Amino acid sequence: MATDSWLNETLYPGWGQRFRVTRELARVQSDFQDIVVFESESHGRVLVLDGAIQITEGDEFVYQEMLTHVPLLAHGNAKRVLIIGAGDGGVLRRVLEHSTVEKAVMCEIDGEVVRLSKEFLPSIAGDAWTNPRGEVIIGDGIDYVRRAPDASFDVIIVDSTDPIGVGEVLFTDEFYENSARILTDGGLIVNQCGVPFMQADELRETSLRRRQFFPHVGAYVAAVPTYVGGFMTLGWAAKQPGIADVDVATIRARAETAGILGHTRYWTPEVHYSAFQLPPYIAEHLPV
Amino acid sequence: MATDSWLNETLYPGWGQRFRVTRELARVQSDFQDIVVFESESHGRVLVLDGAIQITEGDEFVYQEMLTHVPLLAHGNAKRVLIIGAGDGGVLRRVLEHSTVEKAVMCEIDGEVVRLSKEFLPSIAGDAWTNPRGEVIIGDGIDYVRRAPDASFDVIIVDSTDPIGVGEVLFTDEFYENSARILTDGGLIVNQCGVPFMQADELRETSLRRRQFFPHVGAYVAAVPTYVGGFMTLGWAAKQPGIADVDVATIRARAETAGILGHTRYWTPEVHYSAFQLPPYIAEHLPV
Repeated sequence: MATDSWLNETLYPGWGQRFRVTRELARVQSDFQDIVVFESESHGRVLVLDGAIQITEGDEFVYQEMLTHVPLLAHGNAKRVLIIGAGDGGVLRRVLEHSTVEKAVMCEIDGEVVRLSKEFLPSIAGDAWTNPRGEVIIGDGIDYVRRAPDASFDVIIVDSTDPIGVGEVLFTDEFYENSARILTDGGLIVNQCGVPFMQADELRETSLRRRQFFPHVGAYVAAVPTYVGGFMTLGWAAKQPGIADVDVATIRARAETAGILGHTRYWTPEVHYSAFQLPPYIAEHLPV
Repeated sequence: MATDSWLNETLYPGWGQRFRVTRELARVQSDFQDIVVFESESHGRVLVLDGAIQITEGDEFVYQEMLTHVPLLAHGNAKRVLIIGAGDGGVLRRVLEHSTVEKAVMCEIDGEVVRLSKEFLPSIAGDAWTNPRGEVIIGDGIDYVRRAPDASFDVIIVDSTDPIGVGEVLFTDEFYENSARILTDGGLIVNQCGVPFMQADELRETSLRRRQFFPHVGAYVAAVPTYVGGFMTLGWAAKQPGIADVDVATIRARAETAGILGHTRYWTPEVHYSAFQLPPYIAEHLPV
């Protein structure tokens, strides 16, 4: 590949981002998707699935921190956490940073994503792969939640692609129904729900779907540099009320107990609270 | 121009966004800069100056609301407002939406930007161009603040390009010194300060500069879809303390008095408050 070649993201037909590629590291067709890992001039190494940017070394901290710390600390007493997808290991690493978590199970369908992440993106997972409190399963997330016992997790984090292709089953009625079943009484689930400025249907439709199986649903936001298009949304669904309204002092106390206070670059107790304050152009897509 | 042509933003050398162009509307070399207006497939019409996206019809509301409503309502009693730049008229329109504002003066150096905006982007300014409380001056902003009388404005809003090219003088000691002089005792100035994930120096350096002439400086954030790279920052500098700490109820009351409550798509009292809660990766670039 020539030094001045560009990788154009193909997520949206008429708009997108492009990266100058300094070196291509891997290009694999797995059983599930096209996987590319390359070295960019601007963002460190970049993982691309089916033409959509998944993670870059430069900005992964934003997405991983917000996808992990917010549900764990909004819950307040999460001991058992299930992660679906997230094959780069970054969510697993952040979950295990919570000293209060006893067990984190990660279920990623595509072993090639895990293999390539270990080889080319080792800084993202750090030492999470070998942490004894973590368990990594290469398998189908929808199958995993089908078989898991009732009330076996406090929090489920879904780090999937958009609801097309391999990620589609993670937005189905069956998946949410089983998720509700395997969560404990105060449990909650969080899903990445896309960038509403470009993908408003995704937030609206998946929120309605979650609403069928959970009494409380909503979303919070994060400004992820390479999920371009303004705020991305992380949709949540909970068995307990009040997830969006935990005050800053309580969040701070929980973060201190978990041992993550002062170790984050995007998340803070105030940013946590603020993430639930939705602009009207986003809030209008949520069920009332 | 062929129907399937793309416009690549050239703001950063190794990364950027691209738009599918359905029709080019204008391409002008003014006395100050290259100006392009085109119709995009995804974002409506787009204004580009020297290769950098300035505004799109699709997402302009985010930037304009946050650049305008936040300083006016943080101030709390702004009657006279100076706008530097903002040749598309969108800030002028938002300022004049505040029924409490008696006079808004807008000083834009490039008459071609105003002319092309009136012709091709009329929805952005709406009827602001002919509002009797507004005054539009085609002239040099640094010269305007040099000549303006002491204590003649409550709020100054700087909607400039980045501190390169034509916008550079709006980030100088002379500009800030005169801005401090022409502001009233409780006055404040707001500047767009770029996207820290890509342009951290811009926020750090311009904040230090503002600090020489104002006792209180800081920044707040907005997730603008087409200023790609996560949060952009809007730097503020004030003669009064407490700008970042006005509580939600006070902001709501002021917005109600001004007549803007319920008329916004991004800004709300809660979003206002949240915008001052900075992620550590941004806060670390501000002077302590």
